[in-house]
Amino acid sequence: METKEKLSALRASMKQMGLSAYIVPGTDPHASEYVADYWKERNWLSGFTGSAGTVAVTTTKAGLWTDSRYFLQADAQLKGSGIDLMKEGLAETPTIADWIMGQLTTDEAVGVNPEMFSARAYEALRRQLADANLRLISTDLIRPLWNDRPQLPTQPLYVLEEQYAGQSVADKLVAVRQEMAKHNADVYVLSSLDEIAWLFNIRGTDVDYNPLVIAYAMVEKHKVTLFIAPSKLTAFSMKYVVENKIGVADYEHIVPALHAISAHDTVMYDGSRLNQALFEAFPANCKKVDVSSVVMRLKSVKNPVELAGTRRAMLQDGKALVRFFKWLEETVGKEHLTEFDIMARLKEFRSEGEHFVGESFGTIAGYQGNGAIVHYSASEKGAAEIKKEGMLLLDSGGQYFDGTTDITRTITLSEPTAEQKRDYTLVLKGHIALACAKFPKGTCGVQLDILARQFLWQQGLSYGHGTGHGVGHFLCVHEGPQNIRTDLNPTPLEVGMLISDEPGLYRAGQYGIRIENLVAVKECEVTEFGQFLDFETLTLFPYDQQLIDWSIMTEQEIDWVNNYHKMVEEKLLPLLSEEEAAWLKRKCMKH
Amino acid sequence: METKEKLSALRASMKQMGLSAYIVPGTDPHASEYVADYWKERNWLSGFTGSAGTVAVTTTKAGLWTDSRYFLQADAQLKGSGIDLMKEGLAETPTIADWIMGQLTTDEAVGVNPEMFSARAYEALRRQLADANLRLISTDLIRPLWNDRPQLPTQPLYVLEEQYAGQSVADKLVAVRQEMAKHNADVYVLSSLDEIAWLFNIRGTDVDYNPLVIAYAMVEKHKVTLFIAPSKLTAFSMKYVVENKIGVADYEHIVPALHAISAHDTVMYDGSRLNQALFEAFPANCKKVDVSSVVMRLKSVKNPVELAGTRRAMLQDGKALVRFFKWLEETVGKEHLTEFDIMARLKEFRSEGEHFVGESFGTIAGYQGNGAIVHYSASEKGAAEIKKEGMLLLDSGGQYFDGTTDITRTITLSEPTAEQKRDYTLVLKGHIALACAKFPKGTCGVQLDILARQFLWQQGLSYGHGTGHGVGHFLCVHEGPQNIRTDLNPTPLEVGMLISDEPGLYRAGQYGIRIENLVAVKECEVTEFGQFLDFETLTLFPYDQQLIDWSIMTEQEIDWVNNYHKMVEEKLLPLLSEEEAAWLKRKCMKH
Repeated sequence: METKEKLSALRASMKQMGLSAYIVPGTDPHASEYVADYWKERNWLSGFTGSAGTVAVTTTKAGLWTDSRYFLQADAQLKGSGIDLMKEGLAETPTIADWIMGQLTTDEAVGVNPEMFSARAYEALRRQLADANLRLISTDLIRPLWNDRPQLPTQPLYVLEEQYAGQSVADKLVAVRQEMAKHNADVYVLSSLDEIAWLFNIRGTDVDYNPLVIAYAMVEKHKVTLFIAPSKLTAFSMKYVVENKIGVADYEHIVPALHAISAHDTVMYDGSRLNQALFEAFPANCKKVDVSSVVMRLKSVKNPVELAGTRRAMLQDGKALVRFFKWLEETVGKEHLTEFDIMARLKEFRSEGEHFVGESFGTIAGYQGNGAIVHYSASEKGAAEIKKEGMLLLDSGGQYFDGTTDITRTITLSEPTAEQKRDYTLVLKGHIALACAKFPKGTCGVQLDILARQFLWQQGLSYGHGTGHGVGHFLCVHEGPQNIRTDLNPTPLEVGMLISDEPGLYRAGQYGIRIENLVAVKECEVTEFGQFLDFETLTLFPYDQQLIDWSIMTEQEIDWVNNYHKMVEEKLLPLLSEEEAAWLKRKCMKH
Repeated sequence: METKEKLSALRASMKQMGLSAYIVPGTDPHASEYVADYWKERNWLSGFTGSAGTVAVTTTKAGLWTDSRYFLQADAQLKGSGIDLMKEGLAETPTIADWIMGQLTTDEAVGVNPEMFSARAYEALRRQLADANLRLISTDLIRPLWNDRPQLPTQPLYVLEEQYAGQSVADKLVAVRQEMAKHNADVYVLSSLDEIAWLFNIRGTDVDYNPLVIAYAMVEKHKVTLFIAPSKLTAFSMKYVVENKIGVADYEHIVPALHAISAHDTVMYDGSRLNQALFEAFPANCKKVDVSSVVMRLKSVKNPVELAGTRRAMLQDGKALVRFFKWLEETVGKEHLTEFDIMARLKEFRSEGEHFVGESFGTIAGYQGNGAIVHYSASEKGAAEIKKEGMLLLDSGGQYFDGTTDITRTITLSEPTAEQKRDYTLVLKGHIALACAKFPKGTCGVQLDILARQFLWQQGLSYGHGTGHGVGHFLCVHEGPQNIRTDLNPTPLEVGMLISDEPGLYRAGQYGIRIENLVAVKECEVTEFGQFLDFETLTLFPYDQQLIDWSIMTEQEIDWVNNYHKMVEEKLLPLLSEEEAAWLKRKCMKH
């Protein structure tokens, strides 16, 4: 079927169901960042393959809402589809709800697949529509139409040994049940794949980049159940779940299991993560407690084994980057190289590392003006050729049994201009100021954010993304609940949390600069004014000293760079060949 | 009646009403910072006269909850009263609700005077009690018992001429009605005295320090009503209200006026300010919209006339401070001087200023260790003698027709120690960093807060109060909605807002340091990255250069101090006698 035929078929189903509009988001029932093909309903319907976007269809119109990263791609992929591109972030673009409400009249109905909406998002939409006297109906209209739908992933899960995870499932369940007790909960239902992977010390290969297993879970006072496809359990992992007293049920059985909850029980769930279909499966009379980020919060505080593992992963990552950047320096200008080529080469270098599993996200290799496109992703055909001139931004990371990495370096391939050096140095000063932060226990990311931005702001410069995101331990490279952003996130930074430090500056059409390390929150000192915390910098790779304008750096900042380079050298040298070591020493030379 | 007899009488009333507990807060029906004697129910009942504190009474127990400022005073004033001191902020102190719930059993009832609770606070308490199966009852048990109750203030209001206010009542009403239209409101009910004073360009003398008139107000689409005691209107102000088409009704008639609202109307109110008694007077069927800070937000953005007035008030304030500190320097060590004496003397100097009306709050004069008590208030008897040694913290402000001032300076009366200089300089560096902040439009105070704290935090030092509060224009010295604190206040700083910049450091038993200026948010520049804002420093008085450790100041910080002192000198010199001018020049000498 072509998109036009699919839209006709969908509209016929809508008519049959008495619906005047239908919304198809690009998500999955687990609120995942990366979605298995099985759930790509929006891709199937619209032909648009970007990672973010929602289609809304009325009887006469259809629109795809996506953000600026995908305007060009969506424009091309939607051509002739009968779906209009709705550019998110532009003042003239209505929200999906407003667009629908503009076309419908009193008492008409809007349909959605409740699996694709969190309980809170669903309720917000329901209220908004209700204010316009419109009804929201839960119904899956895509399933009956999508004939050649891919299968759900069937790969087996594997166990992350306690030597990497640092905490047994039994201990983690004790902590989870303590949280349940705070809310008098009898049952806790989990749907986030990274929360489930963490809780059961299991990993999988069901989606790109994130080592996750498609599953649901239910923790009760004296029982715990993992809902997964039977095909995922090998003999080994079957033994593991039995030993760990984890009950197993089929993935599809989560709904009957929820129906079977006693009406006298209190059910705890995270309404920002749990999908509406599961929420609707809770018995009507049981007490429901919506609590944000329970396992997410436990998971965000890394234990000493996870931290030690992450430090080891950084050694492997640093070694790979030394080899990669050395190779690049020696090859650029001699061979034909595109952004796409170097992405592949970087993956090769990483894959030589101990315990390497895969990349933690799609590498961003942005040469010159492409570096200024914040979420740039070079395609094989469209990739720019890299020459021995200008600047290159490289944001990449690896998944290791030991931990997850994420690093951005910006380098120059020729003598930089004074403006390039000034821009780079302003970003670096912010990156250093945040790395050096010392703050009382209880401080939130939003309070620290300006440390990274202050030098740019003083010059009327800025960047439009967050300064820091949480990072998992051999899990998602983006995890909550903590972050460092201008948003008012009330999560305090706690000892053991991993977070990125990544200010940037983007000159449209010219170049992009971003400098990113991962840091861990640690105890600093206790004074009469309380407990102070600071950061340990974990990432190990030198900055491009050619890009530093030392004249606008303070003595402390220069010392910090020198000390960082000394640490990088000391930690990475033992892993390198003589030639590599010589290269790294040059890069880490003291200023 | 003694407190014990009052408690017995209250318990008899409680019994009659079927109440097992009764709560008496120290507030008024307008959520004021300073309360007229008429409403001091908690003072009357308990004998405790502090500005913050709530009494809760059960059939067998009674407690007064207050914060650390008042522990000593409350302890003394409650002796033999039968009321226990409950120290707020200590881990072992239960909340009032928990304390009550610990004594009551299912279905018992708790009473409060609904005038003394905001609608939101009342609802929160009601829910908390309901969770424990307790009922909350609105009833005023104090009124029938309090025989010698003071009268409501009867002083006349006066008009703040447009030459000071900068905007007519008609124009302000247009802005208010625009806000009402956003929420489809037909009626908007106001109870905050500073919002009412601002809206009608009226001032009064009904409470200490804040030039307010006790009133309510109701804005409708084509009508506006001010509810005040008839005694408050002089012939002049009667003419003013008629000319400005302001309807007038008796203060007590607000309740019947609310009853008379049409059930088809939508009523807008600020549930964090409007008292529960008024909320209960809304017709049950009318639509109610709880919107925070409507007039507060309009009021917080000062118009050019208000800003120009505030600058003029700063000249008067600076002149008074020059005279005061010169007198202090010449007198200390020669005459017997206490903290209390200098408070009086400072008021005298201020009162010589043009358009001076009164102090904007009770001066904090904290000598040596008293300076480390953040809300210290010297009494005539308990005040410390000031000698020619150690440090003095002086926080004070004035009310002028032109505007409201608030300034803190910390000085040394002898050669300071190295630690005193270091401490002072760390505070000063933060004060300067905040004054120099430049930030994109949309930035909130919490994002800037660390600028003032960073140098202290780096040394494991800190202060336990906010960095900046909003300031009114010839209104309350503390006003919202903006502030600069560690709290996650979502109010962006807007052009025209006044705010204080006041980091501090307190060494218990030794000395306190606080340095405070008022600044106004202004436009800085527009770049390709958007609109940037910064601050104009308004306060005019030199820092004590004896306390500055120049060796830990950067060149930019030293320049900033020199430039500030140059500005202070230029602006104040024309107002000073030759002798005063010579003194100021010495204090502003370039480093």
